[in-house]
Amino acid sequence: MTIKAFGAHAANKPLESLEITRRAPGDHDVQIEIAYCGVCHSDLHTVRGEWAGTLYPCVPGHEIVGRVSAVGAHVTGFKTGDRVGVGCIVDSCGHCSACAADLEQYCEPGMTGTYNSATPDAPGHTLGGYSQQIVVKDKYVLKIRHHEEQLAAVAPLLCAGITTYSPLRHWNAGPGKKVGIVGIGGLGHMGIKLARAMGAHTVAFTTSESKRKAAVALGADEVVVSRNASEMAAHVESFDLILNTVAVSHDLDAFTRLLKRDSALVLVGVPAHAHPSPSVFNLVSKRKTIAGSMIGGIAETQEMLDFCAEKGIVADIELIRIQQIEQAYERMLRSDVKYRFVIDNASFGAAP
Amino acid sequence: MTIKAFGAHAANKPLESLEITRRAPGDHDVQIEIAYCGVCHSDLHTVRGEWAGTLYPCVPGHEIVGRVSAVGAHVTGFKTGDRVGVGCIVDSCGHCSACAADLEQYCEPGMTGTYNSATPDAPGHTLGGYSQQIVVKDKYVLKIRHHEEQLAAVAPLLCAGITTYSPLRHWNAGPGKKVGIVGIGGLGHMGIKLARAMGAHTVAFTTSESKRKAAVALGADEVVVSRNASEMAAHVESFDLILNTVAVSHDLDAFTRLLKRDSALVLVGVPAHAHPSPSVFNLVSKRKTIAGSMIGGIAETQEMLDFCAEKGIVADIELIRIQQIEQAYERMLRSDVKYRFVIDNASFGAAP
Repeated sequence: MTIKAFGAHAANKPLESLEITRRAPGDHDVQIEIAYCGVCHSDLHTVRGEWAGTLYPCVPGHEIVGRVSAVGAHVTGFKTGDRVGVGCIVDSCGHCSACAADLEQYCEPGMTGTYNSATPDAPGHTLGGYSQQIVVKDKYVLKIRHHEEQLAAVAPLLCAGITTYSPLRHWNAGPGKKVGIVGIGGLGHMGIKLARAMGAHTVAFTTSESKRKAAVALGADEVVVSRNASEMAAHVESFDLILNTVAVSHDLDAFTRLLKRDSALVLVGVPAHAHPSPSVFNLVSKRKTIAGSMIGGIAETQEMLDFCAEKGIVADIELIRIQQIEQAYERMLRSDVKYRFVIDNASFGAAP
Repeated sequence: MTIKAFGAHAANKPLESLEITRRAPGDHDVQIEIAYCGVCHSDLHTVRGEWAGTLYPCVPGHEIVGRVSAVGAHVTGFKTGDRVGVGCIVDSCGHCSACAADLEQYCEPGMTGTYNSATPDAPGHTLGGYSQQIVVKDKYVLKIRHHEEQLAAVAPLLCAGITTYSPLRHWNAGPGKKVGIVGIGGLGHMGIKLARAMGAHTVAFTTSESKRKAAVALGADEVVVSRNASEMAAHVESFDLILNTVAVSHDLDAFTRLLKRDSALVLVGVPAHAHPSPSVFNLVSKRKTIAGSMIGGIAETQEMLDFCAEKGIVADIELIRIQQIEQAYERMLRSDVKYRFVIDNASFGAAP
């Protein structure tokens, strides 16, 4: 089936309207009419070739929500009309130790990403949610239990939501815990909402005094301006967990100093230029750790979506038309978005 | 009581013979005639003022073994003639969350180190094991169950032993686990013996082809020369734990690459010059951690000593006279020791 999409033919070309094909649904496939697709920083890095290995034409998008339009003969969990989501993963080996532990994101032979991963389908690599439709194996499709009118704002949960939810759960955010969230962007604003909803005392860190009110509005119990040394000093060795969403090079020691003994600073952003080398003394002196975490597995993504539906959590979004994508990228680069752009895929118009 | 010691009056002065005083044993004190004292890199850094805050006169030494010569009225656990040890800790607050968890090394107000820490005793800071005698609260004195003739080689267990034992236990080294030990010096040679004795598949990493045989002799199941890229490549994502004892700046990514998902690279050495900034991608891609660990608590130090006594584990040592201490330091700086110098405190001669 031929559908409309938006993508780029090369790193130095703008995104433009494309026609792509999707496979006919196989026995275990779910065909989804995409309603909305969130815009992630990874989309921009990949389509502009800022990371190694972009395959062109590149159609980004891995924060996908929509409605089921067809299912394969052996699909039992989904039916036409269901509201569903697709995140960063559309396949994995299914039998390595990571897959066996429901951690498909760490699949040993490598997960199949929603875009830019090898696939038998044309053109040989996966094409993402900046498109009218997608066909995905049922195992990698998520149920959405939010209300219909929340659907656009659910899209960013599929990447920004799970990327923050998974480490918060893994490192035991919850009642009685003091949890820091560094950065108040697409990821950080979800981290604040989720940590608060998990019952943790949630402290937002920002470099900007101007974001103080916004962080409180998102649910932060406290806001610390990280450039303010005396504010930072008041929190020394008091955190059970700090989730750092900032993907630009910065001083990690400022945050390891704030951790309690046996606590972790968890990084979910990979900076293009290395952070200054973190102090080993800060780690050794109180058995602290610096860790990394990447998205989450399918079961945990479903758990996160259900948790968010129950708690009424969605992302704060700005809805755009697909034709505005390049302007949206430019605004993202200036952090001029509160807090996630979401494409209204109705803007693709009628199918070709 | 006045006794003989060896120490320095200033950072730029050599160690020399001193007379110091020890308090008369209080109700809970144990007075120990020191038989042997291990020589730790920390001794050298402290006495030469290479770390901030050295108090002079400085008498180093925190790998102390000897025999009880007197006990206070309320001491029930020790009697005259018992073989005992004193490690890096001679006091702590006793009531913070770390002390309550038997982690006195992480005492929140700060532990009292065996040397260079504030004390009411003259001269106002603690003086260590390069001396004939020491008086220590019973709670910080360890029982030694090794045979009499092993006593000198037990001394390094009090710092090098516990520094490697504690993280191996904390990060679950044991049967079915593949554990790496980076560096084959005072700490590393103990790490190899201990990891092997805990039942882990133990892999020693060294930069030097010439240490291969020695590492096997210490108990390594495998030895990897870390400068050899193809040897390193054979171990990618295969380790459950890597304990890194190297305290000079080096590439940590070479080791995080070898960790399995959810595994830790644990640093026990603090380099004077920062390591190159470790790759965040390596951490994020498989939820890996870089952690630090410092010595161990009193209960765990006793557990380690008992474990070593049962398994017949001691350090490999070279016994020296106290008058050779400066030459020993120079040889340590060249890594010319297999693997720990231990002072025979009989070399102090008769009490003054």
